[in-house]
Amino acid sequence: MKTNYKLELVKKNVVQLVSESELYNKLEQSDITIKFGIDPTNSDLHLGHLVPIKRLKTFQDLDYKVTLFIGDFTARLGDPSGTSKLRRKLSPEIVQQNMSSYQEWIFKILNPDKTRVVYNSKWLKNTDLESLIDLFSYENINTLIKRKGVHQRLEEGKPVSMLEFIYPFLQAYDSVKLKVDIEIGGEDQYFNFLFTRAIQQKYGQKPEVIMTLPLLKGSDGNKMSSSSNNIIPLNQKPDNMFGQIMSINDEIMFDYLMLLSTLESEQITEWEKKVRLKEVNPMNIKMILAKDIVSQIFGNEKAEYAEEEFSNVHRNRKMPLEMPEVTIEKAVEISDMQEALIYFQFTASKRQAKYLIRESAVRLNGQTINDPFQKYSPKDGDVINVGKKTFKKIIIK
Amino acid sequence: MKTNYKLELVKKNVVQLVSESELYNKLEQSDITIKFGIDPTNSDLHLGHLVPIKRLKTFQDLDYKVTLFIGDFTARLGDPSGTSKLRRKLSPEIVQQNMSSYQEWIFKILNPDKTRVVYNSKWLKNTDLESLIDLFSYENINTLIKRKGVHQRLEEGKPVSMLEFIYPFLQAYDSVKLKVDIEIGGEDQYFNFLFTRAIQQKYGQKPEVIMTLPLLKGSDGNKMSSSSNNIIPLNQKPDNMFGQIMSINDEIMFDYLMLLSTLESEQITEWEKKVRLKEVNPMNIKMILAKDIVSQIFGNEKAEYAEEEFSNVHRNRKMPLEMPEVTIEKAVEISDMQEALIYFQFTASKRQAKYLIRESAVRLNGQTINDPFQKYSPKDGDVINVGKKTFKKIIIK
Repeated sequence: MKTNYKLELVKKNVVQLVSESELYNKLEQSDITIKFGIDPTNSDLHLGHLVPIKRLKTFQDLDYKVTLFIGDFTARLGDPSGTSKLRRKLSPEIVQQNMSSYQEWIFKILNPDKTRVVYNSKWLKNTDLESLIDLFSYENINTLIKRKGVHQRLEEGKPVSMLEFIYPFLQAYDSVKLKVDIEIGGEDQYFNFLFTRAIQQKYGQKPEVIMTLPLLKGSDGNKMSSSSNNIIPLNQKPDNMFGQIMSINDEIMFDYLMLLSTLESEQITEWEKKVRLKEVNPMNIKMILAKDIVSQIFGNEKAEYAEEEFSNVHRNRKMPLEMPEVTIEKAVEISDMQEALIYFQFTASKRQAKYLIRESAVRLNGQTINDPFQKYSPKDGDVINVGKKTFKKIIIK
Repeated sequence: MKTNYKLELVKKNVVQLVSESELYNKLEQSDITIKFGIDPTNSDLHLGHLVPIKRLKTFQDLDYKVTLFIGDFTARLGDPSGTSKLRRKLSPEIVQQNMSSYQEWIFKILNPDKTRVVYNSKWLKNTDLESLIDLFSYENINTLIKRKGVHQRLEEGKPVSMLEFIYPFLQAYDSVKLKVDIEIGGEDQYFNFLFTRAIQQKYGQKPEVIMTLPLLKGSDGNKMSSSSNNIIPLNQKPDNMFGQIMSINDEIMFDYLMLLSTLESEQITEWEKKVRLKEVNPMNIKMILAKDIVSQIFGNEKAEYAEEEFSNVHRNRKMPLEMPEVTIEKAVEISDMQEALIYFQFTASKRQAKYLIRESAVRLNGQTINDPFQKYSPKDGDVINVGKKTFKKIIIK
C-alpha cells in the first residue's frame, strides 16, 4: 500500500500533527513504536477514550504494531493538565483494578496480537534520584508555569502541587525509555507532547511525531470526562449505551459520526446538509450512529437487539411526534427524580411519585428509573414518561 | 549549667529564631540533633562559613554533639536560593575533592569527637520515585515560585530550572531523615528552613528550631561568597589572611568582631564608640581582630608571626601616616598589576613595571605580588608600594 494512502487514513480528523513529513517517514518503516498512554485514574473508560483507540486500530489495520502505555505509576499522581484542582493520589490497589477493567474494554476494539502492553511502573518504580535529576535538568519549567490551569491558580494564590510539574517530565521519560516514534492522544495533550519532543532530543533521540485528536463532547456540550459527570461509559449494557447515544443533541451527533462511526466522511457531510435543510429526520441518523458504535464494541447481534429495544420503547410509541413540551427558562434546581415528577406535574404527591418509580413506571430518555432519589437535573430535550402514555419533553430556553 | 545561660550563649547575634521557647526545650535535653548543612559546591571555604561553624563550636563547648550534613548529593544540583543564574551540575569527583578540603578546615575549629559527619548521598542516592512523590506531595510550590530570584526570572522569561524547586524539598528531606532538632545556617536559608519545618510536620515530626546567623560581608560590602569574588578564603597562609583582614573597611570590621572574634560584646561596643569619637585608631583594633581570627584557625604562634610580619611591612614604615593618596572618581578598569603600576604613576613603562614585580619589589596591601598579570581592580583603601619608600593609597570617591 502506498505511504501516501496510509498517511491519509491515519491523519484523518487530527487536530495537531507535528509533523506531516516526519509522520510520512515513520510510516515508511515497518518497525515503529506507536504510543498511546492512558492513566488508569478512574474505573470507567468512556466513548471519549474510543477516539484515540480507534485510531490505533487504523494503524493495526495497516499492519503496524501499537504500544499501549499503561500509566500505572503516573496514575497515582494523576495528570493535572487542564484541571483546576489538585488530584488526590491513588492507592496501587485501585490503580490495579482500573487497569484490568481498561484492558478488557480496549481489547474489544484492538487486536491483542498487534498490541504491546507496557506499564510505566516498570521503569519509573526503580528510577533513582540521580536519573531523575538528569531528567529534570533537561528542560526548564518556564512553559509549565505559564499553562492556563497553573498560572491562574498561582495568581489566585490557590495551591499548585509539585506533582503537576513532575508529570510532564515523567510522561516524556516514558517516551524516552521506549524510544517512541509516534504518540497519539487527545488535543489537551498537545503541550505535554511538545515537552516530550524537547526532552527526547536532549536524550539524543529523534522526537516523536505528535498526533492529537479532538476531544469528544458529552451530552452537556463539554469535553467528556469522568470529572464532568457527562460520560457515556463503555462498561454498561448495550441497550443502555444505545439510549445514551440517542440522547445526545443533533449538533454533537455529527462529531460522533466523524470520530466514532465506521461511516464515510462524504456520507456524513451529506447527511449534515440534509438535516440542515430538514430533508432528513436527525433521529434516523442518530439511530444509525448508535447502532454503529454499539456494534463496534459489542458486535452486530447485540447492536441489533439494542436498536429493537429502543424502537419498542420510543419509536413504536411515536414519542417524538405526540409529545407535549414543557419549556423552562433555564435549568431549574431539582434534586432527584421524585421531585422531577412533581415539578413537571406528572403527579402532585411525593408518595405517589415514589410509588410510580418503584413500580418501574417511570422512564428518563427511555431508560427505566428505579430509584426515586436518583439525582436529576433537567437537560434540554430530556423526555420523561410515566407509563405508556404520559410523555413530556423538556425544553430549556 | 542553667538552660537560660546556655540559651543566651547560643542565640547570640541570631537573625531569625523560630522559636526561642522551642530552643529552650531542646537545650534541656542532652541528646539532640543539631544540623549544619553545607554543600561542597566550591573548593574554598571562607571566613563567611566560619560564622555558623563557630556557633556549632559554642554548642560543643556546652557539651552538645553537632551534626555536619555534607550535601555531597545536593551539591551536584547546587542550591539556587537567591542566585539569579542556573547552577551547572557538578561531577561526583569535584564534589569529593571539595568535601575533603571542607572537612580539613572545619576541624581546625570543631572538635571531631563531638561532631557527627553525615553525607546526604547516603539516603538520597537510593531514594526511589515513589518516596519522592510522597515528599513532593507534602508541600505546594506556591511559596517557592514567589521567591525573589525565581519570580523575577519567570517574569522576565529567563530560564528557571526544576532543580530549583526540588532543592528545598531535598533539604527538608535531610532533616526528616535524621529527625533534626535544631538547624543552623545563614540568614539566606530562612525560607528553606521554614519549608523544612512544614515538611517535617507532614512526616509527623516536631519541626526543627530555626537559627539563622548574619551573612558576613566581603571587602566590597556585599555578602561574602565565592561567586562575588570577594572572599577571604580559609585555605591560605596565615600572614596572607592577616593582611586580607587588615584590608576590610572600618565599618565592616565591627561585624567581624561581633561574629568572628572571641572578644566580649561589651568590649566591642566600647571600641565602636571610641572609634566614632576618634579616641582610638581603628587600625589598632583591626590588628587585634586579625590576630584573633588567625589565631583561632592557625593557633597562637602563627597568629603572632603573621602580626609581626604585617607590622614589619606596614607599621614600622609608618605607612598610614606618610602615604600620598590617589583619588579616582570610581573604580576604573585596570586589567592587571603591571597596568596598575602605570596607571598610578609608579613607572611609565610596562617593561619596568614587569621587572619591578618580578623582583618582588611590589606589594598590594602588604602582600608581595609576583605575577605582573595578576588581575586587579582598585578598591577603596588599597595600598600599593614599590620598594620600601614609595607608597600610594587609593581613594575611590
